[in-house]
Amino acid sequence: MKTFRHLSILTAGAALLAVGSVSLAQTEVDPTVKARQSQMQLIAYHTGILGAIAKGEAEYDATVAQRAASNLNAVAMLAPEPMWREGTAQGEAEGTYAKPEVWSDAAGFAEKLEGLRQASAEMIDAAGTDLETLRAGMGKLGGACKACHETYRVPKN
Amino acid sequence: MKTFRHLSILTAGAALLAVGSVSLAQTEVDPTVKARQSQMQLIAYHTGILGAIAKGEAEYDATVAQRAASNLNAVAMLAPEPMWREGTAQGEAEGTYAKPEVWSDAAGFAEKLEGLRQASAEMIDAAGTDLETLRAGMGKLGGACKACHETYRVPKN
Repeated sequence: MKTFRHLSILTAGAALLAVGSVSLAQTEVDPTVKARQSQMQLIAYHTGILGAIAKGEAEYDATVAQRAASNLNAVAMLAPEPMWREGTAQGEAEGTYAKPEVWSDAAGFAEKLEGLRQASAEMIDAAGTDLETLRAGMGKLGGACKACHETYRVPKN
Repeated sequence: MKTFRHLSILTAGAALLAVGSVSLAQTEVDPTVKARQSQMQLIAYHTGILGAIAKGEAEYDATVAQRAASNLNAVAMLAPEPMWREGTAQGEAEGTYAKPEVWSDAAGFAEKLEGLRQASAEMIDAAGTDLETLRAGMGKLGGACKACHETYRVPKN
């Protein structure tokens, strides 16, 4: 009986784990979504390098800062079409926070993307100039991120 | 007693789930590693678009194909330094398959990266020409991926 009870416990545990796995499989991220999340990841990563320098958490180094800004701009300059396909908004594809407005208001979305492209392009020069100029450019960069997220991304919490 | 047994089962289940969560937390991917995995993800995604066209799984469209190749090349052109930091090989950072040879044989790694940059640059023209030219370019592109993975990545299975 004791053995049986242990088996029941293990079975119940396994069942709970199985439920966990199934729900993970069900919410497997769409490849198109995964691609643009990779794009966002690279934008956040390189912005983070610049942010750490701006906050004095990392030492200012013109080469390091300029490389981060160049990468950031290159990732912002990627053609959006392959990654921002119609039919991959929240509710249509798994794992995304993209609002349908990305597509229904394509001109507005393009304008926000252009804002990021400009801010990151300016940051290439700013980051290579000096710490103060880099710091001054962070506001526009952060503003470009925020402007798009506020309008075209479903709040994450 | 029945209630108690149910509680035990739930507790055991919760404990098993907790163990699962802890092991996930322990293997949380290093941000630098996550950034280059995003780079790889974008390379794989855009190569996949070209591959599907080459195999006839997707219709040939010069604009679509050329966009994918342009994005692929842009991602290959990113400065590697911010994402391929020393001290982030397998055994040094969580979640990576990068061999220490990426750093100990930096010239060899740079050569493989150059191979991908060239193959993807050539693919921009090839993809925009016609299906046969795109197909012909896939070999060099796939070869560039393979050449680097064989030497600088720990086998995944």
